[in-house]
Amino acid sequence: MATQKVLGILGGGQLAQMMALAAIPLGIKCHIYEPDPLAPARLCAIHHCAPYDDEAALRQFAAAVDVITYEFENVPVDCGTFLRTLKPVAPGIAALRICQDRLLEKTFARDLGFTTAPFVDLVASLTSADAIAAVGLPAILKTRRLGYDGKGQQTVHTIAELDTARACYEGHPLILEGFVTFAHEVSIIAARAADGTTVRFPLIQNTHHHGILRTAVAPAPCSTKGLEQDADRMMQTVMHAFGYIGVLSIECFVVETTQGPTLVINEFAPRVHNSGHWSIEGARTSQFAYHVRAVTGLILPDVTLHGVAAMCNLIGDEPDDSEIPPDVFVHRYHKAPRPRRKVGHLTMVSSTHDNVTHLLQHCAQLLGVKIS
Amino acid sequence: MATQKVLGILGGGQLAQMMALAAIPLGIKCHIYEPDPLAPARLCAIHHCAPYDDEAALRQFAAAVDVITYEFENVPVDCGTFLRTLKPVAPGIAALRICQDRLLEKTFARDLGFTTAPFVDLVASLTSADAIAAVGLPAILKTRRLGYDGKGQQTVHTIAELDTARACYEGHPLILEGFVTFAHEVSIIAARAADGTTVRFPLIQNTHHHGILRTAVAPAPCSTKGLEQDADRMMQTVMHAFGYIGVLSIECFVVETTQGPTLVINEFAPRVHNSGHWSIEGARTSQFAYHVRAVTGLILPDVTLHGVAAMCNLIGDEPDDSEIPPDVFVHRYHKAPRPRRKVGHLTMVSSTHDNVTHLLQHCAQLLGVKIS
Repeated sequence: MATQKVLGILGGGQLAQMMALAAIPLGIKCHIYEPDPLAPARLCAIHHCAPYDDEAALRQFAAAVDVITYEFENVPVDCGTFLRTLKPVAPGIAALRICQDRLLEKTFARDLGFTTAPFVDLVASLTSADAIAAVGLPAILKTRRLGYDGKGQQTVHTIAELDTARACYEGHPLILEGFVTFAHEVSIIAARAADGTTVRFPLIQNTHHHGILRTAVAPAPCSTKGLEQDADRMMQTVMHAFGYIGVLSIECFVVETTQGPTLVINEFAPRVHNSGHWSIEGARTSQFAYHVRAVTGLILPDVTLHGVAAMCNLIGDEPDDSEIPPDVFVHRYHKAPRPRRKVGHLTMVSSTHDNVTHLLQHCAQLLGVKIS
Repeated sequence: MATQKVLGILGGGQLAQMMALAAIPLGIKCHIYEPDPLAPARLCAIHHCAPYDDEAALRQFAAAVDVITYEFENVPVDCGTFLRTLKPVAPGIAALRICQDRLLEKTFARDLGFTTAPFVDLVASLTSADAIAAVGLPAILKTRRLGYDGKGQQTVHTIAELDTARACYEGHPLILEGFVTFAHEVSIIAARAADGTTVRFPLIQNTHHHGILRTAVAPAPCSTKGLEQDADRMMQTVMHAFGYIGVLSIECFVVETTQGPTLVINEFAPRVHNSGHWSIEGARTSQFAYHVRAVTGLILPDVTLHGVAAMCNLIGDEPDDSEIPPDVFVHRYHKAPRPRRKVGHLTMVSSTHDNVTHLLQHCAQLLGVKIS
């Protein structure tokens, strides 16, 4: 008789939901630990509904599972550190700690030899003039922690604007980043097993709208052999540095240089990523299946794509089924509509980029959004 | 804002589980009604745990959902009839009533003009000699109701054996069926929407072992254009006769005749079918997604296969993950091991029948079963 592990997931949003949907066929039961009583993943996992600092509830959660992962990087490090004393946590605490702080993250990337946007630690003693001298204008002020989907950041064009913005975020540790003039935005998604073997999806090309991911296409139309090699090297280096187990995502800019296109790291996500959702239908093994397999100690099958895939987020509200073309897959997250909230996504898979782009344009029109 | 239906499922086994896994991404929540507290589908549906004749619990179940379906045809007709007064039930009660009784089922098929095995209603007044005279020897004695996976049936070779067998099943309504000399066993799986549109998978070729489905391959290697046309006509006729909504499965024998191969109906299943499990990975829209879509009023996308697919049941016990080749998908049902119990299945998808057959042989060897 095969004995399957029980997986604990910190967080119970759509990422946890899609993890659990991938886990059940593998014989893996999931428990989620999530303060929100209406968390989407409660539909397919056992829900531990408690705050992240409730030690008794965390103990009970840890006792119920064999291994613990997380669906987002803003889980308090203390929570992860506490749980690690009870059960294995994958990806590890180092990835969690570094990826939830933009300063540590960018420093980590730079120290590994990779290019990032220019950045400075915006400590109180650093004047706005000196900070801007370091990174140029325009620049982006960001909170070091708890930023996602364009939250916790503001573009500034002058020293005075930066002064004002700093005042707004008083009390929050901040960094200032220079602008990167990019040709494209891409993401790298890969998985690493406990034994060190890795698999990686081809580069994915993304568009954003008001700081929120809007579309993803895989393989990235802008990709080149050189960029894929760079992505491989980058991912291997980062995963090795973290001693990583699970799916890791890296958002990058593609910048044109005299040596050709190159990757500039924007940010890490130590988890499955919105830009990989197409893999549920577009790949033989989805990012969710890879993550579940990796953290529960299963082998990682090779990456096989079913063609070209695209994903379009449903933000704020969902279209009616009758509006969705029959050859487009819909994923609804069971979340109440709310402005700027990710409530679902659409996936298209076809044999060519042209077909997929055509479907994607059609869906964008349906949703009333402009995609470039 | 899109408002998705809530689906009620009578039964909470692996079929309900796979329906719920297909329903959640569509934004459709599932409730199961199932007396077994350890039902596999409880992992991804709200569980109403009560007997099928508990009117109060049935009312509560019906109140919680928008439409009701069933995962197996042995739901008591009275239960379906009662629920139909509260909420729509799809497929309808006619299909349930006919498909749960071998005599009604075979009579229904014959009356529609299709060939079945020879059969007689084994009423008490019919002598074993006369019954055998009607269907030939060897023959199979079957209970009219509640037979599945080879249960409730016995092969007889003589009048005396039939007499003995009848005595064993005293009190149960019985039929006697003649043997069909078949070249192959196949199944037809199709879905019909409320508006009458239908989609059908190509014929699927099956092998059984001790009365339990062991393997399925799609498209069926034995199929011909003529057989597919026959399957179309058969499915359309049957679905129309039932006013069917949902997935319908028909198990057939392929019999060689002087006019070429022809289909002989063995039995109907008014539900998703074990021989269609390959469609989760092998088709763009799985049988489970089709069923959920049909009964909740969504349109049915065309059938698109990802290649040739095969399925091998895990019966009695499950292999360890380390034994399963990386290019084979495993589905575990979260059921305790028990002899002759279906506890999971393996799926293979490839570009050619040769590749899939090779993988299937490999898996059969792994499981220690002989497949032909």
